[in-house]
Amino acid sequence: LDDLLQESLLSSASGYSNYRGILNWCVIMLVLSNARLFLENLLKYGILVDPIQVISLFLKDPYRWPAACLVIASNIFIMIALYTERRLSVGAIGENVGIIIHSINLSTVLFFPVATLLMVNSVTPVGGVLALAVYTILFLKLYSYKDVNKWCREIQHAKRLNGAASRSQVHYPGNLTHRDMYYFVFAPTLCYELNFPRSPRIRKRFLLRRLFEMLFFMQLLVGLIQQWMVPTIQNSMKPFQDMDYSRMIERLLKLAVPNHFIWLIFFYWFFHSSLNFVAELMQFGDREFYRDWWNSETITYFWQNWNIPVHKWCLRHFYKPMLKRGMSKWVGQTAVFLISAFFHEYLVSVPLKMFRLWAFMGMMAQLPLAWLVGRVFQGNYGNAAVWISLIIGQPIAVLMYVHDYYVLHYGGEEPAAPVLLS
Amino acid sequence: LDDLLQESLLSSASGYSNYRGILNWCVIMLVLSNARLFLENLLKYGILVDPIQVISLFLKDPYRWPAACLVIASNIFIMIALYTERRLSVGAIGENVGIIIHSINLSTVLFFPVATLLMVNSVTPVGGVLALAVYTILFLKLYSYKDVNKWCREIQHAKRLNGAASRSQVHYPGNLTHRDMYYFVFAPTLCYELNFPRSPRIRKRFLLRRLFEMLFFMQLLVGLIQQWMVPTIQNSMKPFQDMDYSRMIERLLKLAVPNHFIWLIFFYWFFHSSLNFVAELMQFGDREFYRDWWNSETITYFWQNWNIPVHKWCLRHFYKPMLKRGMSKWVGQTAVFLISAFFHEYLVSVPLKMFRLWAFMGMMAQLPLAWLVGRVFQGNYGNAAVWISLIIGQPIAVLMYVHDYYVLHYGGEEPAAPVLLS
Repeated sequence: LDDLLQESLLSSASGYSNYRGILNWCVIMLVLSNARLFLENLLKYGILVDPIQVISLFLKDPYRWPAACLVIASNIFIMIALYTERRLSVGAIGENVGIIIHSINLSTVLFFPVATLLMVNSVTPVGGVLALAVYTILFLKLYSYKDVNKWCREIQHAKRLNGAASRSQVHYPGNLTHRDMYYFVFAPTLCYELNFPRSPRIRKRFLLRRLFEMLFFMQLLVGLIQQWMVPTIQNSMKPFQDMDYSRMIERLLKLAVPNHFIWLIFFYWFFHSSLNFVAELMQFGDREFYRDWWNSETITYFWQNWNIPVHKWCLRHFYKPMLKRGMSKWVGQTAVFLISAFFHEYLVSVPLKMFRLWAFMGMMAQLPLAWLVGRVFQGNYGNAAVWISLIIGQPIAVLMYVHDYYVLHYGGEEPAAPVLLS
Repeated sequence: LDDLLQESLLSSASGYSNYRGILNWCVIMLVLSNARLFLENLLKYGILVDPIQVISLFLKDPYRWPAACLVIASNIFIMIALYTERRLSVGAIGENVGIIIHSINLSTVLFFPVATLLMVNSVTPVGGVLALAVYTILFLKLYSYKDVNKWCREIQHAKRLNGAASRSQVHYPGNLTHRDMYYFVFAPTLCYELNFPRSPRIRKRFLLRRLFEMLFFMQLLVGLIQQWMVPTIQNSMKPFQDMDYSRMIERLLKLAVPNHFIWLIFFYWFFHSSLNFVAELMQFGDREFYRDWWNSETITYFWQNWNIPVHKWCLRHFYKPMLKRGMSKWVGQTAVFLISAFFHEYLVSVPLKMFRLWAFMGMMAQLPLAWLVGRVFQGNYGNAAVWISLIIGQPIAVLMYVHDYYVLHYGGEEPAAPVLLS
């Protein structure tokens, strides 16, 4: 009769562990919950999506395009970098003079748009962010450009040809052409190389699919922000002014969901659709724009894998040179987070014309957080901790900035109309 | 350079498929969304949980305990079944007389509590459901009791000892004792056997853990119903009276979440904690009270695996005897759903004193639904379809009954106070 004895499946003694149906359950519960939120939102606010309003995000005065002018003006700095390298390559100027010219050029790349944005009043916050993002990317690219060309000269002077350089088709200084420079400027990478890996042909079907995704997710992002994010943020202002803690937490959790979805869609839109579209168009072969950050079990793993272009740049042009100069790993890591925190703050504070350091502190908080998560949580729990820090951390920073923006512009009074978009 | 060519992980060409972090993501999003709902509910309604109010669910008039009296009275029918079998075993009455007595006894078990509930006014709906559930279980048990004893007599008469019977310790008619009868009545099974599989000892730690779970989940169930289910249902009445379709769907989805959680907790509380507690206490060895219904890929698989005691009874005492009498499998299956639909309706309509057939139709709708899901969805999609039918189907039936109950008792007017619990 012993073979008739049976434990229930959920008893630990049964040894049962097949819960694959639970994943389906989770997905369905999420879809249904959010379908309801979506319907509730529509019933409460009606349709707030307004494509015309989007134009006003970019344009305040239709006769002035300050952000676009800024982007066009960036060509000057590209040319300065190229011609400096050309003169360096023929020895017309010395290495030290080259370093001085590059330093002035790179500093200007960083601070010229800041000065422009702070002085010109017709720039909208969104236009400002875009112009600053272009300049930030350009800064990182030109920094890489100067480093790589310098390394090439060092190799030439030492009369030894490095492995990677010897096999390549283009040799220094044959790379110092306008064509090569602009290929690098538009390529989806921040690290300059004389010979990028190239894909054999443009796959038209792949290109069209990525283009469709780009357009679709762009619309979806704008729609979600107008319909879901803006009303939620506006409803959050009052509890934050009154310092009503339980309602603040409720609002924060309410904001966390759309904010997180928008971030996920942004990730896919930018790192998968857009960068792959550009790469396919330019036959750029290295498509490793992100790694499997969704499986991160530590905060560090997340930061090393979600944004590979920036991660590669930091490793090649910042972290490794620091280690070579004898810095410890810990100092190097802290410095990387410090520069990253600087750029986060730079991209937020300047367009909002409001220096609050929330973004800076948010990035710097990653260091103790990474240490804590690494010590306390392992495996799946570590992964869960990374997700929670992403889902909760971002809306805290968003609410901080929006709250301060309201207080600054409306003196603590709750605005009646959706001011963020008008 | 070809080894430097890399596809992005999310491109189909990369062949990447490790998304285990996504399960964590789903769980965290669910927990956070529901934490927010919980907080919103608390801020909106305050604390509605009231243990004293629960007593009023069972008791209308503190000097009359009709439901408890009904349950005590059920001993009469148990005794009738036992003494009829005793007389049958010694040949004092013929098989046909036995069938008549058993039929009358079983019919009385079904309809005596109905008559009592409809006549006695001091029975609350919850007390009524409990009494009817006890009588339904008793009906199924006594039906099984009579069948098995008849089979034993048939084997005796044919002078051949069946495999299972020959190895057993108790032989017919040695089983016709009070002790054996009451062991069966309290055992967590509906199928009578002369020799149940018995576990070797009572594991005290296991018993205490199940007891703790029983008490905890019982409190949780009552709390969730008072705090989450009742206000949601009350807020749903107006859209349903106005036939405002978009708000009806919104309310349905809002109700689906607490309803589903409550059903899941009920499942665990009853089929895992309570039945295992009783089984451990009685050293009852067969703990297969449920199988892995959460992985169901068809509706049929769900119904065959979520409630094993009833499934085993239907198979042994209803479906197989029908097949033996030459019915087709399809007719047998339909008949099983028909009897199941009858009992669902029986358990709802009588306590509410309201005959609407929603529960009956809900069960009968499983047949075409099972056919449809089986034809259209396979594998994971089938599993998702089963989950959706569970999550959405139940609150539809709940809202139907509650709506009709309101219309019947309050003439279509929205009640101001939580009448369901008062």
